[in-house]
Amino acid sequence: MRDVAIIGIGMTKFGELWEKSLRDIAVEAALKCMKDAGTKRIDSITIGCMSSGLFNGQEHLASMISDYLGNKHTPATRVESACASGGLAVRTAFMEVASGMSEYALAIGVEKMNDVSGDKATEALATAADGDYEAFHGINFPGLYALMAKAHMHKYGTTRDQLSQVAVKNHHNGSLNPHAQFPMEITKNTVTGSARVADPLYLFDCSPVTDGGAAVLLTTVEEARKLGKQPIVVISGIGVATDTIQLCQRKDILTLEAVKLAGERALKMAGKTIRDIDFAEVHDCFTIAEIMVMEALGIVEPGQGGPATESGLTALDGKFPINPSGGLKSKGHPVGATGVAQICEAVTQLRGEAGKRQINNAKTALTQNMGGSGGSCVIHILEVK
Amino acid sequence: MRDVAIIGIGMTKFGELWEKSLRDIAVEAALKCMKDAGTKRIDSITIGCMSSGLFNGQEHLASMISDYLGNKHTPATRVESACASGGLAVRTAFMEVASGMSEYALAIGVEKMNDVSGDKATEALATAADGDYEAFHGINFPGLYALMAKAHMHKYGTTRDQLSQVAVKNHHNGSLNPHAQFPMEITKNTVTGSARVADPLYLFDCSPVTDGGAAVLLTTVEEARKLGKQPIVVISGIGVATDTIQLCQRKDILTLEAVKLAGERALKMAGKTIRDIDFAEVHDCFTIAEIMVMEALGIVEPGQGGPATESGLTALDGKFPINPSGGLKSKGHPVGATGVAQICEAVTQLRGEAGKRQINNAKTALTQNMGGSGGSCVIHILEVK
Repeated sequence: MRDVAIIGIGMTKFGELWEKSLRDIAVEAALKCMKDAGTKRIDSITIGCMSSGLFNGQEHLASMISDYLGNKHTPATRVESACASGGLAVRTAFMEVASGMSEYALAIGVEKMNDVSGDKATEALATAADGDYEAFHGINFPGLYALMAKAHMHKYGTTRDQLSQVAVKNHHNGSLNPHAQFPMEITKNTVTGSARVADPLYLFDCSPVTDGGAAVLLTTVEEARKLGKQPIVVISGIGVATDTIQLCQRKDILTLEAVKLAGERALKMAGKTIRDIDFAEVHDCFTIAEIMVMEALGIVEPGQGGPATESGLTALDGKFPINPSGGLKSKGHPVGATGVAQICEAVTQLRGEAGKRQINNAKTALTQNMGGSGGSCVIHILEVK
Repeated sequence: MRDVAIIGIGMTKFGELWEKSLRDIAVEAALKCMKDAGTKRIDSITIGCMSSGLFNGQEHLASMISDYLGNKHTPATRVESACASGGLAVRTAFMEVASGMSEYALAIGVEKMNDVSGDKATEALATAADGDYEAFHGINFPGLYALMAKAHMHKYGTTRDQLSQVAVKNHHNGSLNPHAQFPMEITKNTVTGSARVADPLYLFDCSPVTDGGAAVLLTTVEEARKLGKQPIVVISGIGVATDTIQLCQRKDILTLEAVKLAGERALKMAGKTIRDIDFAEVHDCFTIAEIMVMEALGIVEPGQGGPATESGLTALDGKFPINPSGGLKSKGHPVGATGVAQICEAVTQLRGEAGKRQINNAKTALTQNMGGSGGSCVIHILEVK
């Protein structure tokens, strides 16, 4: 297997991008990535997008984006695993380079969610749940995560304040990120003073509906050296795992098994343990998700995600910073773009280019991208070589 | 890059499978494939499906199918490129094995199109066209291919009879295929006596709306040898290319550039020319498509697809048999499954297990799977080693 480096990153502003179409957003992210990489060579394109069919009435997206990017004959693939589509796109691009099918592989994540009305967006997102056994009965994602939050509070004593602290921390980080959709500081009162969405979750426990795109360019480490890239950021580990989509079929709804397994697989491939990781970008689609992901990854023991957040462990200046970008909560969550955007943030940090939100001496990062309520998970380990 | 072999194939009956759900169909194809391969080991799953979102209200399909197959923690990815989704799934599974990410990679193609009403099926399929520049104006796929057929008739003198002969040949082949949706012989009068869909195309020029699934299991050639597989069918070449989706943006709507390029790339990778190929399964979504694909692949000169079909070149006992399975026309076209089903047929022929539709001395096959009106194309070269 050939060693793979990330030599370019690019992102659009995340938000309500009314003046830009789906194809505009994807192309903007890709062009910024190519400029950052300093090369125009692309041998293959992989697009991560959850549901351009339901959001935009457009499948066949990879061909369309290749064309609008000015690369119409390039091999192109769209990959989907609900909200983990972006992470899978990077993994697929990794395989392009690792296998030798491509020398330069571009991965783009994109979603344009605001062109449909609110009801339709919720309906489209609900297709990440089991249509026959969950969505049919009327439960949507705030509801599914609310069930997990309630159970977590009951079993471990996780408090409402601890959930709020996740949002407060991530909005603080996001306030330092020019790409963030909601780059403002909030307090715990902002969270509990917002509309109740699904008990115990308030509006400010939930990631927003977002338009946005992100892109990364991969090539071999050898090629990155030839181009004189410094530092060279490599993907040293990737882990993917799936789980039953239905919460009702899981042995324990408080253990995200796909996250646990994907983490173990990625760390094993990289020859590392979680103690070797300097910081992580994780999938905080809801505040409770960040807490459960910390536990599944072994950053803290089960039940300790809330207290650890409260103690400042995961703050920018904590011992294990989580979501320096602001996370899905503040940066926004254009579902197909999220996994790629996480990697853009990790590379920015590893290059030392994160400005006011820079983590000191960051050399090794973990990104964790999750589909639905944990039905799939893709984890990347990135390192400076 | 590691050499890759196909050690298992499986298909459902194609047709209106009212009693089977989307997940049932995918799992049935996969279980038949595992039985054929004689192993239960699966390290990764790739699902080709065009639009389970629009047809079935279900994204996150790869996790769901892994779970229902009894492999819930397995890495799983869905890939999409409209009607070329199945071919891309096999290519992605190929990269899993070639790169070393997986030893055993399962590719499943599936689509369940009959659970929505006719209008909705046409609407879902139209998302393979450009939503803003084609579908918005009301043109759908019969219309797009009718434009190509008219232009082909005008430029090259292709006749109505020649179009009909494609359907007659493929229905003859399909009548010998137990998986086919419409396994009956037809005459040219059947075609021109059927309903006019979009001038010059009749109902019997069009592939049907179909439910169905197909699966293949890939591993290394070395592993296939260890398992004692005989003959060993290898994937020796893969080519993918994209093109502008919009017909109006092409230099020439009579040249399928994506097919031409994908064919050149696949043959180059395999170290072959089109003269080395014994037979092909091609994407006859409409009768005119088979004619144009023959020309794009260089099987005949541009404009000679019609006369060559009339002369019997592409018949089962012709010099270059095309669509021994019956093709999309007679076998059916569950869009995401088609590219995988083509490879199932090619392997069946290369193993000498095709019964009454067996092609004599078939050692090298080409499968050509196409998205939309040629916006993407995936070509595989299979050989007996």
